[in-house]
Amino acid sequence: MRYELYYWPSIQGRGEFVRLALEEAAADYVDVARENGGVNRMMRLMESATAARPPFAPPFLKAGRLVIGQTASILLFLGSRHGLAPKDEAGRLWTHQLQLTLADLVVEAHDTHHPIAAGLYYEDQKPAARRRAEDFRRHRIAKFLGYFERVLERNPRGDRWLVGARLTYADLSLFQVVEGLSYAFPRAMQRQAKRYPKVVALHDRVASRPHIKAYLASARRIPFNEDGIFRHYPDLDG
Amino acid sequence: MRYELYYWPSIQGRGEFVRLALEEAAADYVDVARENGGVNRMMRLMESATAARPPFAPPFLKAGRLVIGQTASILLFLGSRHGLAPKDEAGRLWTHQLQLTLADLVVEAHDTHHPIAAGLYYEDQKPAARRRAEDFRRHRIAKFLGYFERVLERNPRGDRWLVGARLTYADLSLFQVVEGLSYAFPRAMQRQAKRYPKVVALHDRVASRPHIKAYLASARRIPFNEDGIFRHYPDLDG
Repeated sequence: MRYELYYWPSIQGRGEFVRLALEEAAADYVDVARENGGVNRMMRLMESATAARPPFAPPFLKAGRLVIGQTASILLFLGSRHGLAPKDEAGRLWTHQLQLTLADLVVEAHDTHHPIAAGLYYEDQKPAARRRAEDFRRHRIAKFLGYFERVLERNPRGDRWLVGARLTYADLSLFQVVEGLSYAFPRAMQRQAKRYPKVVALHDRVASRPHIKAYLASARRIPFNEDGIFRHYPDLDG
Repeated sequence: MRYELYYWPSIQGRGEFVRLALEEAAADYVDVARENGGVNRMMRLMESATAARPPFAPPFLKAGRLVIGQTASILLFLGSRHGLAPKDEAGRLWTHQLQLTLADLVVEAHDTHHPIAAGLYYEDQKPAARRRAEDFRRHRIAKFLGYFERVLERNPRGDRWLVGARLTYADLSLFQVVEGLSYAFPRAMQRQAKRYPKVVALHDRVASRPHIKAYLASARRIPFNEDGIFRHYPDLDG
């Protein structure tokens, strides 16, 4: 069975967390909206008047007859299918809990450039964005990355991965968050990264996984840009 | 086994979604931080230097040796333990997906009064709050409640519940969101509610469940107030 991933074709966005899991698992998938006419197919599926379980927004993943929306829910599914999460209940829930905490960070990173409304341009909310970004740089990055550093420190199976002794989808997502923060806030991250050596080492460890390394070097990896979640606006980097 | 719920003792907040599930299930639980010295116990548990799997923030639930954080993850766990979610994988994931969409709405509702920083007072971000709340009232409430109305319309097992023919934790959470929005934005909700008759009927159906009805009438239900997620500031209600 070939998975069908539905997500906006020109940004990493939330879809990237799913792409990374599919790539690490070497799963057979098609990134539908990047094919000819794919965005139309995605919109038709979303707006279908007959779908019994319509997704709220991209990304969503078609797996046979299943259509799964919400990034964390897709990863919960892929994690158990592809060995990207522990099999025991406690480990599965812990991995998911970490993913949900990363998702909270992703919302906050997005809202640094869109504190007033996602439907307005950044240019129409710049003063509020500057204030929100300042708070994010000063307080929120440290709160979140400090937490993940602690999780690595305390993992009884060692500090290579967040959960147990093997990579999970939460590691892939933490990699992506560090990538994104480094793109959006290079000055802030340069100052702060040394406080989180285990997080940075995990990032590098993920980047050098054979499947991930090949993916990052491929045209399948969309470069960061100023339409996605992580945007580099120098005004917001202090 | 008695569950221990850890959450701030003076607000409904995110903990309320867990309380509603525990109450509907008639589960044996203690709301730890509402007991004498309970907040200290909660802080000690959160800051414990030895916990292998520390929660990022309340709410978290202690279930025997398990400590589960993140509201949606707690509900995933309680859902399967207490018949508050379907047993099949597709139904479980769909329920969780709806919960995560409600969680997105909860963040947006919170940020109407805190668009700049959770660490600042509302009074220090009022102009931004007014703009964000206006967008939320005009666009976001309709987008989310319209979606849940559609989910109810399309449920092949009827429009009584979001998933299948029985109540799930997602129904309890939708009830709570409608309660919260009606408290925070009474004028906006009065204007808009008639567009979502199935959502409103579901809200009323949940409110009249025997366990929920008894809970809402008890001292265990903390009243809404201006410290929680859903706050009534007339300035933000248009």
